[in-house]
Amino acid sequence: MASPEARITLAVDVMGGDKGPSEVLAGVVKSTSFVPRNLRFLLFGPESDLDPLISENSEWKSISHEIRHAPEVVGMDEKPIAGIKNKKNSSMALALQSLKDEEADAMLCCGNTGCLMAGGTIRLRTLEGVERPALCTIWPGRERYFTLLDAGANPHPKPYHILQNAILGSNYARVALGLVRPKVGLLTIGTEEGKGNELIHEAHSMLKDIDGTIINYAGLIEGFQIFENVVDVVVCDGFVGNIVLKACESLSKLIGSFLDEELKRNAIRKTGALLSMGAFRSLKQRINPEQFGGAPLLGLSRNVIKAHGSSNRNHVCGAVKIALDLVRHDMLGQMQEDIRGANDLLRPFPIHGSE
Amino acid sequence: MASPEARITLAVDVMGGDKGPSEVLAGVVKSTSFVPRNLRFLLFGPESDLDPLISENSEWKSISHEIRHAPEVVGMDEKPIAGIKNKKNSSMALALQSLKDEEADAMLCCGNTGCLMAGGTIRLRTLEGVERPALCTIWPGRERYFTLLDAGANPHPKPYHILQNAILGSNYARVALGLVRPKVGLLTIGTEEGKGNELIHEAHSMLKDIDGTIINYAGLIEGFQIFENVVDVVVCDGFVGNIVLKACESLSKLIGSFLDEELKRNAIRKTGALLSMGAFRSLKQRINPEQFGGAPLLGLSRNVIKAHGSSNRNHVCGAVKIALDLVRHDMLGQMQEDIRGANDLLRPFPIHGSE
Repeated sequence: MASPEARITLAVDVMGGDKGPSEVLAGVVKSTSFVPRNLRFLLFGPESDLDPLISENSEWKSISHEIRHAPEVVGMDEKPIAGIKNKKNSSMALALQSLKDEEADAMLCCGNTGCLMAGGTIRLRTLEGVERPALCTIWPGRERYFTLLDAGANPHPKPYHILQNAILGSNYARVALGLVRPKVGLLTIGTEEGKGNELIHEAHSMLKDIDGTIINYAGLIEGFQIFENVVDVVVCDGFVGNIVLKACESLSKLIGSFLDEELKRNAIRKTGALLSMGAFRSLKQRINPEQFGGAPLLGLSRNVIKAHGSSNRNHVCGAVKIALDLVRHDMLGQMQEDIRGANDLLRPFPIHGSE
Repeated sequence: MASPEARITLAVDVMGGDKGPSEVLAGVVKSTSFVPRNLRFLLFGPESDLDPLISENSEWKSISHEIRHAPEVVGMDEKPIAGIKNKKNSSMALALQSLKDEEADAMLCCGNTGCLMAGGTIRLRTLEGVERPALCTIWPGRERYFTLLDAGANPHPKPYHILQNAILGSNYARVALGLVRPKVGLLTIGTEEGKGNELIHEAHSMLKDIDGTIINYAGLIEGFQIFENVVDVVVCDGFVGNIVLKACESLSKLIGSFLDEELKRNAIRKTGALLSMGAFRSLKQRINPEQFGGAPLLGLSRNVIKAHGSSNRNHVCGAVKIALDLVRHDMLGQMQEDIRGANDLLRPFPIHGSE
């Protein structure tokens, strides 16, 4: 694994973002002002799109990069497995291949989430002992940020998948949020024993077994506690996580539109809004923090970072920084060690389902 | 069932709200300015609490009411079944009893949701053919309100519970939102066939079978569509519904606090905020609409309305209006007819699990 001095290579799928390749490239350029000089970028996309964008910006001359021609693009509407299997020469497929070949240390992609998850799972191995990857997102809480996983990679988890996600999420929270012993909570309804469902009961019992050694397990939490920073890592199944993520994202957009409408309703409100403009800008940044522009697909043997389809250059820049942090902190090595540790602790009830 | 002319009796559990019995009583008084004169209230709570509150307000002289002494109160922290079984003389238990005895046509309660659901299910029958009740909530959408159920009554539903909830929710949307053919959507992740889980696949197939006759089924929807008024009735299992409801409630509070903090950060922003004050008030009312202060527990043979624990007098007033609408529109009779119709349609695959 890379030490801080070694050269780090980041594969970037330049295509697939809603704002087009120019915005992704602008984000990469922006990131170079604070990333170390030993970082190299592999830029995947059609040469006809990338060449002009690169040559028109002289900043690229001082950035270590290489254009990798990928004639196809995976569209936002393509189905997960078909999208990745039918487009072997897409920027996404070729970037994944560069990860698999260990040419790149991490990969960044703003494109189709379903295809990236399917592609990551099919083309890359999982960490030893991990069965299914999980998508891990960072959310704003009342006092500080927290992580939530799984945001949709695995909608039918078994209890040991939940256990593994707790381990994966803890490691990510250590690196991305700089926490030493992140508190883990299992999301359910009602925290009394017996409430929830079978999956929750079994996972809760397994999590208690590795509490204090592998993770710092704080127990069950309810929906209303998510944003209250009761825990740093919210663990749930991918069905619930995906629905909660999307509902909350769209609710905050709705509140934003309502506020906008109400502030424009008459001249006095409009004047007030002009004076308070800075507050609305800060609010937006607090709810949609650009420094956490990427969500890793955890549990794979390589670092795959998904940035939101609607990412602007600041989000892409944040995602590059996350990718770099994961490599520099050797998150994968630490995760592998923790998964092995949990596996040993839980024998004769192995967490790896195939044993 | 009551015709508009018949006397309607509403049982009110005056205890259990966070703001105390005076606020609940104030809400009842407020409601009488627009409810018909033939409405009578049964007020359940300790006489020592209620008597002084009633006698100090002369408006009660013109309101048909009766105090029903209930010496015990179910606390907010009591466990669902124990809370209702151990406190047979609580305001909640006695109000439920008055419903069971057909002395009251509907019941209103701001207290412990778990105890009310357990009590409602244990003490009252369900509608014929309905196995499990569902808690149905009204949410603000971009253009209009919509309903979501189940918000937590049944966290392990079977596919035919989901089907029944679609029927129950449609009937509620007709009465509460005044819609003729409310569109029903099933909440899942990814709307392509094959995504989601087993429960979703089976429920989706059953819902298609009763589309066009019993309900107006619009198909699968995703989390980001909830607030976009793609459908009027969002159906999901009680585990997901409860988590999404609580997460969204706490997110909107969080955004409110962030906005408040940002607006107070300097003098210019504060001045702007003063000028725009009306916008923030309207925003709050749009997100937390007081006219929908109550959520019915659907599927029971009697009308039980749960108001939020933190309800103010306006929410209580809104909940009284909802209770009255359910009785006047004979929602229970229509639901019973639709459940029978679905049951007949789906034979030889009965929706009633015990057949």
